[in-house]
Amino acid sequence: MIVVLAGGVGGARFANGLAALLGAGELTVAVNVGDDFDHLGLRICPDLDTVTYTLANLNNRELGWGQVGETWSFMDAIRKLGGPDWFNLGDRDLATHILRTHRLNAGEPLSAIVADFAAQRGIVQRILPVTDDPLRTKVMTDEGELDFQDYFVRRRCEPVFRSIRFAGAESARAHPEVLAALADPALEAILIAPSNPLLSLAPILAVAEISEALRRRAVPCVAVSPFIAGQAIKGPAAKILRELGIEPGPAAIADHFGPLIDGLVIDNGDPVDFPVGGAGPALLRTDILMDGDGGQQRLAGEVLAFARSLRRG
Amino acid sequence: MIVVLAGGVGGARFANGLAALLGAGELTVAVNVGDDFDHLGLRICPDLDTVTYTLANLNNRELGWGQVGETWSFMDAIRKLGGPDWFNLGDRDLATHILRTHRLNAGEPLSAIVADFAAQRGIVQRILPVTDDPLRTKVMTDEGELDFQDYFVRRRCEPVFRSIRFAGAESARAHPEVLAALADPALEAILIAPSNPLLSLAPILAVAEISEALRRRAVPCVAVSPFIAGQAIKGPAAKILRELGIEPGPAAIADHFGPLIDGLVIDNGDPVDFPVGGAGPALLRTDILMDGDGGQQRLAGEVLAFARSLRRG
Repeated sequence: MIVVLAGGVGGARFANGLAALLGAGELTVAVNVGDDFDHLGLRICPDLDTVTYTLANLNNRELGWGQVGETWSFMDAIRKLGGPDWFNLGDRDLATHILRTHRLNAGEPLSAIVADFAAQRGIVQRILPVTDDPLRTKVMTDEGELDFQDYFVRRRCEPVFRSIRFAGAESARAHPEVLAALADPALEAILIAPSNPLLSLAPILAVAEISEALRRRAVPCVAVSPFIAGQAIKGPAAKILRELGIEPGPAAIADHFGPLIDGLVIDNGDPVDFPVGGAGPALLRTDILMDGDGGQQRLAGEVLAFARSLRRG
Repeated sequence: MIVVLAGGVGGARFANGLAALLGAGELTVAVNVGDDFDHLGLRICPDLDTVTYTLANLNNRELGWGQVGETWSFMDAIRKLGGPDWFNLGDRDLATHILRTHRLNAGEPLSAIVADFAAQRGIVQRILPVTDDPLRTKVMTDEGELDFQDYFVRRRCEPVFRSIRFAGAESARAHPEVLAALADPALEAILIAPSNPLLSLAPILAVAEISEALRRRAVPCVAVSPFIAGQAIKGPAAKILRELGIEPGPAAIADHFGPLIDGLVIDNGDPVDFPVGGAGPALLRTDILMDGDGGQQRLAGEVLAFARSLRRG
């Protein structure tokens, strides 16, 4: 059994590779909810949807988000009504948002809705929000504090990143099934997907029960670097680290996760300018770019084998 | 200046004919809200939308409801999620429902949102919900009482109609602009569109301030029959009247509105088997079928001329 901590696209693709290699019920994907927000009265959960759509093979590969075969009549109509159009909502995607919001407002926990949507879409892996409690990422910038999607989508990460906080994290309880999976005697390894360490993974670890469970882990924990040659494979991770005065690359990831990881997977071409082995994580160098389904499975397989070869540090 | 009381399709088409003949600001369309309901957390206002889409020339003529160029990705996706699919929501239509619901939940009155949506769509006539207060049509049937859309859409008017009530009507205040228009010294006539008398017009008149204003009217009030040869031009009006033991036709309309109308417009071929003149309404016989834009304007013009020829009875 494997638990993977995942953000959006990178997390979804890595989880999809793992899903192809593990049996039904052997994979638990604990997903970031810090990006979740309310827009036009609808609860949007970008990372949960990206993971779900990807595992259901419904993900839109051109866009990198949303559903395949998406249409945009709603956005056209909302523009004509003078409504807000800075956040794109596809017509198919709206079914997810509307039904989820309706069920949340009726009192169902997010995790139950996510599980039902996954089952409706034929997914046999377990997808869990890291918490059912409200946890919202806020980004302090040179223009003041912005809600995550204001920073990420409306302002396209253009404001200079100063710091980040996770509103609600201090009181958020980890989802009990995530904790149970992390404590399961059948657990082989905990994997940290190549997601943005600050925007996608830090909000997961900001839930005290999660980072505590990682600290107390009985199995190896392995992180996959999201960087190749100082650039993030996707998204603003490199820009953000530079704005914090940190050079994006494997050393930043090793430093960021510190004692929470026993192994680190980095790209072949990247420098090993940080302690490895005793004082740092064990290292696997490989091609971390996931090219298509084959690339996802190759990387997932290599990371699985690496994690299984490690002992809890 | 003209006030027209309108339900859905018949009301919208008649109002559209009037709009073509009257100057900007000369037409007030007071619209039924009894059909409004909440579905999947969204406020749906079928008659207001049909009137608005029709006056904006955005109405879907094939369907008889919704918007032209509509797409159905949302419905396809909601079916795949196992969500309720008995009420069709087009992708374009959703922009109306989502933005309206969001603004209602933020505290705006329905009428302000309707006015803004109409302005965004270039409509120069005034479209008003007859009330901003909740007023919901309930139909008592041989299967018990049903919410209007349960009866009308989900059950396709199949249960036998026993009676109707308008929940909230007793405390609903008429929209002040409707009352002001009805009391305006420049008002020439009040017209009752060829809408369903029980389902679409009765909920308007169930607002006490509206029926009181009609009783106190200083100008002629003219109703247009929705029946041709014992059949409703559209919808279940004939079936419902028969289930109540009433023969559908002009006599039923004359009886239904009684002293509230001074004139009645009926189809050429229909019988005049009710008092006309002194003891009943003045009569105009014409072709009441509105065939295309031309037919709408022809009927509207004939009804306008007829109403202007009458005195308050």
